[in-house]
Amino acid sequence: MGAPKKVVLAYSGGLDTSIILKWLQTEYGCEVVTFTADLGQGEELEPARAKAELLGIKPENIYIEDVREEFVRDFVFPMFRANAVYEGLYLLGTSIARPLISKRLVEIAAETGADAVAHGATGKGNDQVRFELSAYALNPDIKVIAPWREWDLTSRTRLLEFAEAHQIPIAKDKRGEAPFSVDANLLHTSSEGKVLEDPAEPAPDYVYQRTVHPEDAPDTPEHIEITFEKGDAVALNGEQLSPATLLTRLNELGGKHGCGRLDLVEGRYVGMKSRGIYETPGGTLLLEAHRGIESITLDKGAAHLKDELMPRYAELIYNGYWFSPEREMLQAAIDHSQARVNGTALLKLYKGSARCVGRWSDDTLYSEQHVTFEEDAGAYDQKDAEGFIRINALRLKLLAARNRR
Amino acid sequence: MGAPKKVVLAYSGGLDTSIILKWLQTEYGCEVVTFTADLGQGEELEPARAKAELLGIKPENIYIEDVREEFVRDFVFPMFRANAVYEGLYLLGTSIARPLISKRLVEIAAETGADAVAHGATGKGNDQVRFELSAYALNPDIKVIAPWREWDLTSRTRLLEFAEAHQIPIAKDKRGEAPFSVDANLLHTSSEGKVLEDPAEPAPDYVYQRTVHPEDAPDTPEHIEITFEKGDAVALNGEQLSPATLLTRLNELGGKHGCGRLDLVEGRYVGMKSRGIYETPGGTLLLEAHRGIESITLDKGAAHLKDELMPRYAELIYNGYWFSPEREMLQAAIDHSQARVNGTALLKLYKGSARCVGRWSDDTLYSEQHVTFEEDAGAYDQKDAEGFIRINALRLKLLAARNRR
Amino acid sequence: MGAPKKVVLAYSGGLDTSIILKWLQTEYGCEVVTFTADLGQGEELEPARAKAELLGIKPENIYIEDVREEFVRDFVFPMFRANAVYEGLYLLGTSIARPLISKRLVEIAAETGADAVAHGATGKGNDQVRFELSAYALNPDIKVIAPWREWDLTSRTRLLEFAEAHQIPIAKDKRGEAPFSVDANLLHTSSEGKVLEDPAEPAPDYVYQRTVHPEDAPDTPEHIEITFEKGDAVALNGEQLSPATLLTRLNELGGKHGCGRLDLVEGRYVGMKSRGIYETPGGTLLLEAHRGIESITLDKGAAHLKDELMPRYAELIYNGYWFSPEREMLQAAIDHSQARVNGTALLKLYKGSARCVGRWSDDTLYSEQHVTFEEDAGAYDQKDAEGFIRINALRLKLLAARNRR
Amino acid sequence: MGAPKKVVLAYSGGLDTSIILKWLQTEYGCEVVTFTADLGQGEELEPARAKAELLGIKPENIYIEDVREEFVRDFVFPMFRANAVYEGLYLLGTSIARPLISKRLVEIAAETGADAVAHGATGKGNDQVRFELSAYALNPDIKVIAPWREWDLTSRTRLLEFAEAHQIPIAKDKRGEAPFSVDANLLHTSSEGKVLEDPAEPAPDYVYQRTVHPEDAPDTPEHIEITFEKGDAVALNGEQLSPATLLTRLNELGGKHGCGRLDLVEGRYVGMKSRGIYETPGGTLLLEAHRGIESITLDKGAAHLKDELMPRYAELIYNGYWFSPEREMLQAAIDHSQARVNGTALLKLYKGSARCVGRWSDDTLYSEQHVTFEEDAGAYDQKDAEGFIRINALRLKLLAARNRR
Repeated sequence: MGAPKKVVLAYSGGLDTSIILKWLQTEYGCEVVTFTADLGQGEELEPARAKAELLGIKPENIYIEDVREEFVRDFVFPMFRANAVYEGLYLLGTSIARPLISKRLVEIAAETGADAVAHGATGKGNDQVRFELSAYALNPDIKVIAPWREWDLTSRTRLLEFAEAHQIPIAKDKRGEAPFSVDANLLHTSSEGKVLEDPAEPAPDYVYQRTVHPEDAPDTPEHIEITFEKGDAVALNGEQLSPATLLTRLNELGGKHGCGRLDLVEGRYVGMKSRGIYETPGGTLLLEAHRGIESITLDKGAAHLKDELMPRYAELIYNGYWFSPEREMLQAAIDHSQARVNGTALLKLYKGSARCVGRWSDDTLYSEQHVTFEEDAGAYDQKDAEGFIRINALRLKLLAARNRR
Repeated sequence: MGAPKKVVLAYSGGLDTSIILKWLQTEYGCEVVTFTADLGQGEELEPARAKAELLGIKPENIYIEDVREEFVRDFVFPMFRANAVYEGLYLLGTSIARPLISKRLVEIAAETGADAVAHGATGKGNDQVRFELSAYALNPDIKVIAPWREWDLTSRTRLLEFAEAHQIPIAKDKRGEAPFSVDANLLHTSSEGKVLEDPAEPAPDYVYQRTVHPEDAPDTPEHIEITFEKGDAVALNGEQLSPATLLTRLNELGGKHGCGRLDLVEGRYVGMKSRGIYETPGGTLLLEAHRGIESITLDKGAAHLKDELMPRYAELIYNGYWFSPEREMLQAAIDHSQARVNGTALLKLYKGSARCVGRWSDDTLYSEQHVTFEEDAGAYDQKDAEGFIRINALRLKLLAARNRR
Repeated sequence: MGAPKKVVLAYSGGLDTSIILKWLQTEYGCEVVTFTADLGQGEELEPARAKAELLGIKPENIYIEDVREEFVRDFVFPMFRANAVYEGLYLLGTSIARPLISKRLVEIAAETGADAVAHGATGKGNDQVRFELSAYALNPDIKVIAPWREWDLTSRTRLLEFAEAHQIPIAKDKRGEAPFSVDANLLHTSSEGKVLEDPAEPAPDYVYQRTVHPEDAPDTPEHIEITFEKGDAVALNGEQLSPATLLTRLNELGGKHGCGRLDLVEGRYVGMKSRGIYETPGGTLLLEAHRGIESITLDKGAAHLKDELMPRYAELIYNGYWFSPEREMLQAAIDHSQARVNGTALLKLYKGSARCVGRWSDDTLYSEQHVTFEEDAGAYDQKDAEGFIRINALRLKLLAARNRR
Repeated sequence: MGAPKKVVLAYSGGLDTSIILKWLQTEYGCEVVTFTADLGQGEELEPARAKAELLGIKPENIYIEDVREEFVRDFVFPMFRANAVYEGLYLLGTSIARPLISKRLVEIAAETGADAVAHGATGKGNDQVRFELSAYALNPDIKVIAPWREWDLTSRTRLLEFAEAHQIPIAKDKRGEAPFSVDANLLHTSSEGKVLEDPAEPAPDYVYQRTVHPEDAPDTPEHIEITFEKGDAVALNGEQLSPATLLTRLNELGGKHGCGRLDLVEGRYVGMKSRGIYETPGGTLLLEAHRGIESITLDKGAAHLKDELMPRYAELIYNGYWFSPEREMLQAAIDHSQARVNGTALLKLYKGSARCVGRWSDDTLYSEQHVTFEEDAGAYDQKDAEGFIRINALRLKLLAARNRR
């Protein structure tokens, strides 16, 4: 791989990516294009522009974009159609944001004639894989630069020295080391490292940033209604909302009631286990509500197949294979199932828990006439069950008779 | 199928199975053996003996047994090794009890020379299937009698008339119809039917029997420690306990904190959807704790395979195939994975939620040395990640290049 | 289920379905509509018209249709996109024809105002299930009549008596019993029963009807080229052909060279095992060629996912769930994978075997530049493999270190 | 990774591994231990001893072992219990030999105090992965040296120069380049590269080494009987044989009749596609026979689960994960299913094809009584099928009714 000539950098405006920006300029002597995305991480973006300019980036090379609607509509919602959870629990908040960032990096590279993209993920984590597999899948000729795997700035001290040597402003609170590492977007906030590295130790309270402590949540439960069309949430309490707006509101509601906290140890794609604290308030509500609507609108043949495919689907997203034929195949199957997943779920939020306690739909498959303990007017002939059981038992009986021999 | 000569009846001592008992005697003129099991449903068993005697059952034909330890050790625990949930949520509390009952029915039939077994499940539900598939799988020649599918006692009025005509005592509170139908054992209580038949309507408070309302749970969280050996819980807060005792304690703890409530619509094996309220206080804690211990002791290769196999495994149990070669094959795979699933999980219980907030094990695979953000003394070479990504990307790049053509 | 008023019967014109026709008339006093389809079974259809008229069917109630193109295009080809084989070997030739017949039965019922459909499958086989599940899935209100499960014509003698009593002409060679039972369509011929009922005994030579004995096949191999577009065969030896024409030609070629014979014991959906002799000459060539083209045009991520989904997909078709949401979901995934499955496979046919010995495509993913043992001009950096292996090994190393403890 | 002090080399005695031997000595100045295994590749092993001695290896450091029985018993047979084929066709002949070699390398390292192992696989193939993952899984501290990824002997010329410079004898026929690359063991022979690199071109006849051309095979079919116990072949034509002896005989039979040739393009784990010619004469017979016995002794619940798990299992072996918890979990499931897979399969071998044409077993599940077209004496009540179908149809009917709305 020859040296890059022009690099599009995923740039947050923070100290680390500013150091990367400067390092790219000095190490490769290449032109740098910055891409700063509003994924709902809750930070101002315009300071990133000022900082990029300060570091010598040409105005036309500074891309600052609000991609929240695209993020929720084209990435978060398709994933929630699958009820995806990784290792039984994790809602993939970080994983699902990476392909979108890579997609824009590659597109901006094409627009600006850049031959490379760069990111600030380390060599130990999953994000490097997600960024890079996405980039290569979208442009097989792109170069990817991962400074954390390349440079020799391997300690906090050396990073700060590099920053000072290159006139990169250092906010006072960035001098010391953060007690843990954070990633955030509209779907979730994750916290890892440092004080969290002993998985036996409960996370300190101050780690949680987006959800109140359940103990501090309102003493009165709150009921909300989430309405779905074709598997996607479209309204909250009867009010139609855009994808990102809806998720924002769900985050507020979930956060207020202390919902969506997760403390877990996960198996990284690169082979080690890591401990993370995840807060996914809105996503937790969304998953519960989506399962609720599916429970009355999906036939069990479709529902069970979805459940069987889900772990693979979630693993693919976790591992960075959003832009892969197998993820797309699974998506095609999942999306096919959602055509009639319409209706409304009623959730009860209370001190850390979100439970679906009611659900209704014009497309319901629930038939009170069939299930009733009361007289069913011939909807169901109980005698049929005898034949059903006897035929299903036949192979087991043949087996039992054989095994006696 | 010729008429049965001697029938072993799953007998609760309640009105319905007493009517069945009498009906078997009058309809078939056959001898009846009663089997009453303590599965932890929380009812006295000795009244069943008195009632059976009153109905003319010979003392040697009355079997009353406490099977709680066997239930938890040989059925509940193996199932929890798999983290089994049906349709994403249901912990299979009713499903897992049925094979044990059938097993004892068939064994007692062999001991007493009976040629048939009988149960009190209706023709619309899953339980008939579970009872009968288990019975046939254990004895291919056994006859199974399901009175609810056969008789003409199709209304409450006719049932009561039959009872009165045959001097079956009717408790006063059984004259009217129960507002919903209940099944209970050491793992869970389920409620279905009647007032619960509209899935849009939240369940009335009085339906919940085993868990306090989260709003009424203690205002202070409680932390507990569950210790596992080879995937099975063996101790609570450091105290070694037998399987049934442990689950009983967990039920108390979970119930006290309002944990394990579930309101859902499920797809029955017989094809209709039904709405159920499930309370699984101890099981909910057990699942959370087991996942917590697995997260540090199971390699992700094993863990992900388990997650992929789980929905099928759960479906098999739900559908009544506990005694099937495919369930046993999956169990063999699951059990193989549990050899080193040892350790302790710390749970926080609070007003309806149970979260694992810490976990430790002598068999942990978590390596702080590898995952640390700090200097790792060469445990991990970040440069390796580049090759890892580039090789994994190769097929995606070839694909992208082809798709451009 | 009330008595049917008007029934659409799947009518072959043979003795058995003629008896059914008459039985429907006499048993239910209902009007009968006949549907006779040319699925490529190799029999004249017009005699069925004459016979139906003879049995009193009104001309407007006689439907005779050539559905061969629809059969191959909409049923056989979608199934072959999946490389579907049941229990490792069976190409599902009978299974795939049933949903099409049911679809037309239900459509004709709608056109003619019939309230029921009827078929001539017995109560022991899979076909009854396939016919009926398809019918119910397409019209939940349709009645289905399966005379073999209902009537008392349970011996050959009684059938013949019934035929004679109702002036149904009996061909001389139908007086005695056939030595085995046959089903045929454009995809395959199956033979079952009677002389084939001992699975230890090789099938007599005279059972095979559609393929020459390999020993009698030409002594010289023949090479053919099959061209695919989007996963479907479109040309043979460079000549564009319609689906049914193409399959017809492949049948001739395969039959001539003794290809596609199968002698197996299969597990029926209804629980018993049965032995069948299948001849699928064209389908065998098609499968081999399709796998050949996929081998160069499908990425392994897609290909392996297809392989994992296939057994389920095949089972669904075998069991009669063509018209089910889960089959459609799998089809959506499979079809998504076929967008670039274009190209030509070269097969060698010789005395019973058909092997792909060459394959090429404008959409190939095969890169001689990457795979070559020669100098590859930097297409692949072998050093990347070290990182790839080391990262993939990390979890195994952590595991090995733990297991030593 | 520091320099190795003592290395155990997988040594064939051929030119390439002799060069590696010398290179290890000169590059690292380390002591070399050679391991030469008879896996049934059909070459004399003693010349390897002489050559190793000539290259300065101490006699006690020369390990030459016949591992054929272990290979077949502990690797090939367990794999065949699963009916494993990769990408629908490949019987994994090379893949399954690698873990055994690595196991012995690691064991010999422990015996001899070596800190490293070395192999002669290139950086483009799968074998490097298989060798190294196995080694790391068995000893997490072992060093692995892969000279082809490290050295600069990147052309034939430089290799020969190195050999001459170090007095490594070069057989005359090794001066020029082989027209393709070969791997062989008791299970198969694979040929790759050079003349085979264009997948459109049929392989030249001279590539095939182990099977006669079907055109040259005997004009008379041969029938053989293979007997299985617990899923493993134990006898041929009634004669009990050890695993390796049995496979050797099957190779002779299959080879004589031209069976087991495969020409395919496969997706390598490292991401590229490669074309291979595989000859697996005995294995092809074994697979056909094993499926034949399973067809009468395995319940379809077990059989279908096996079919669904198989592609993953095969992929794991192909990718080098023999020694992984997930392969072991699958093996546990598969082995559980084989307890009653006993019986004899009759195969017909003829000019390239091997077909099972009969099978029998004391453990058969085939019940002529149930399946017969004749009177079955009440073994099966056809009326049961109606209930079976109606219950299975219920969800489809509810769905159809909903979809009409």
